[in-house]
Amino acid sequence: MADSASSPTSLLKDELDIVIPTIRNLDFLEMWRPFFQPYHLIIVQDGDPSKVIKVPEGFDYELYNRNDINRILGPRANCISFKDSACRCFGYMVSKKKYIFTIDDDCFVASDPSGKPINALAQHIKNLLCPSTPFFFNTLYDPYRDGADFVRGYPFSLREGVPTAVSHGLWLNIPDYDAPTQLVKPLERNTRFVDAVLTIPKGTLFPMCGMNLAFDRDLIGPAMYFGLMGDGQPIGRYDDMWAGWCIKVICDHLGLGVKTGLPYIYHSKASNPFVNLRKEYKGIFWQEDIIPFFQQVVLPKDCTTVQKCYFELAKQVKDKLSKVDPYFDKLADAMVTWIEAWDDLNPAGVSTNMPNGKP
Amino acid sequence: MADSASSPTSLLKDELDIVIPTIRNLDFLEMWRPFFQPYHLIIVQDGDPSKVIKVPEGFDYELYNRNDINRILGPRANCISFKDSACRCFGYMVSKKKYIFTIDDDCFVASDPSGKPINALAQHIKNLLCPSTPFFFNTLYDPYRDGADFVRGYPFSLREGVPTAVSHGLWLNIPDYDAPTQLVKPLERNTRFVDAVLTIPKGTLFPMCGMNLAFDRDLIGPAMYFGLMGDGQPIGRYDDMWAGWCIKVICDHLGLGVKTGLPYIYHSKASNPFVNLRKEYKGIFWQEDIIPFFQQVVLPKDCTTVQKCYFELAKQVKDKLSKVDPYFDKLADAMVTWIEAWDDLNPAGVSTNMPNGKP
Repeated sequence: MADSASSPTSLLKDELDIVIPTIRNLDFLEMWRPFFQPYHLIIVQDGDPSKVIKVPEGFDYELYNRNDINRILGPRANCISFKDSACRCFGYMVSKKKYIFTIDDDCFVASDPSGKPINALAQHIKNLLCPSTPFFFNTLYDPYRDGADFVRGYPFSLREGVPTAVSHGLWLNIPDYDAPTQLVKPLERNTRFVDAVLTIPKGTLFPMCGMNLAFDRDLIGPAMYFGLMGDGQPIGRYDDMWAGWCIKVICDHLGLGVKTGLPYIYHSKASNPFVNLRKEYKGIFWQEDIIPFFQQVVLPKDCTTVQKCYFELAKQVKDKLSKVDPYFDKLADAMVTWIEAWDDLNPAGVSTNMPNGKP
Repeated sequence: MADSASSPTSLLKDELDIVIPTIRNLDFLEMWRPFFQPYHLIIVQDGDPSKVIKVPEGFDYELYNRNDINRILGPRANCISFKDSACRCFGYMVSKKKYIFTIDDDCFVASDPSGKPINALAQHIKNLLCPSTPFFFNTLYDPYRDGADFVRGYPFSLREGVPTAVSHGLWLNIPDYDAPTQLVKPLERNTRFVDAVLTIPKGTLFPMCGMNLAFDRDLIGPAMYFGLMGDGQPIGRYDDMWAGWCIKVICDHLGLGVKTGLPYIYHSKASNPFVNLRKEYKGIFWQEDIIPFFQQVVLPKDCTTVQKCYFELAKQVKDKLSKVDPYFDKLADAMVTWIEAWDDLNPAGVSTNMPNGKP
């Protein structure tokens, strides 16, 4: 199945939006044209809203700058980060499609070991359209790929799998390292093409990178909140990590799958490690508490929708993480605001039975 | 580190035994000569003990047939399977080395994508000598390999990892499928070389195959019991699965790591699916109860050695699985016998504080 990943496709053309956060002209789209042009783009312009972002001709897109976000969300716009690529999650909220693919504007088309350009989007779609297997590990990786299957000893009752909510792609060239690792290994490049997709097992957390990520908005969208980062916040570069921890515990609770591995994109330019260190250092410290928190989170059985799970998570964040730093109190409030805004913009998706009498 | 896996090495020459269960002449060793010859072999002859097994010249080996097993273990020999490759675990017991590599006699040297022969043993040794990371998933796979590291968002407190107890290698050509899958896909061959080693996360079970497997005998040896299979037993081909479930819950409890992925061997010949179906069918049925059992096993804190863990596991097997089939009652007894025999043959490894007053 995944073997045809590099051939152009417009699968799910009317059901998928590509969300791109940016502060610059989107020249990088030229390289993606054969793969992205059939799809609708949602561009979330970060920083100065008066700047004009050029989008190469022929792409179908809508663009939102900070003024648009403020206008559309009103006072709730404060849950959307500014001067940080975390603002991308606004695009998830305004999309009306079932699937989202989000990519950074410094990510280019990678090649597979035979030199063929990789259609990352097609591979993400394949990942999302075939099930996940979070309850037992398959040693030959994704059992649904061509030429693979469940190995001896894999319980037959688990072979139908569960719906895949998230597809996490990887990066050739510049790996997604934190600032300390960037500083220590400035020249390290990822050249290893690992030809695998695998389900991250239930109960296991992972560092989700937002650079090359796709998800099923209907299944997990309301949990794909990228938090409060950047301008006015004590932290940056933890937007995708935060979303990753949240979506994983919710997927585990709701019986949804998270896949990682293929597709690769080519990540062209490492961000400045000194700037990154300033953004990250509190996160590096805090994650030592945050991760144990997420590892022990239990969501009650009556949390049967993503929204209910997310409200419950916000409550637990407030209860348990506020003592780490007052920031988490603010973040917990923003999590609630995010869901309120999501449900306002996506009325069909509103759960009929919200906790705390919320609509 | 793993990149030099294909170059011959005699690393750990005096600390590793190669255990081979067989019923035939070991011609397959010719192909492995450059890699295996520096090491000591323990050959466990299955079936008719009067048959003479030929071993190619130049190999250093000891060979045990059924008469030897009966003589050495006396009445406890009944814990060692007969007419099933499960008998291989006798070799683990009589070894005096720290590491074991076990391989089936229908497994040959595989080639990497560049055509270079893969020194499977060298890769296993690398896997065993570098740590595992069971508490959090690293999206770039083994962070200790050359060219890889921990990605952004990986907690620094977990980057030292834990000792690796088990290295589970894979198979090109004939994949390790159960009989139903063999019957349905008789022509499927595994041609996908996935260039990865990864830690199976804590709390996740996996189907461990005994075809191409290495482990640290000091860390996990007493749990590497391959159960009661074959002659006189209602089941076969679940020896390695049984061991895999047991070692995984014990590794998780003791904070040890289990790696899977590289190295590949070339598996030459699929066993007869009709014969396999007869051996497997009860296992296919039973695993639907056994796996949930292992998923919920909790070992008490005072189980601080592999032996103590294994005795506790035997107790829980008797309590909880005997109702599935009386076979598990017998198996639980054999698990205790196995540890008693292990400790007799390995007196230095005897725990000073065995439960139930056992020596």
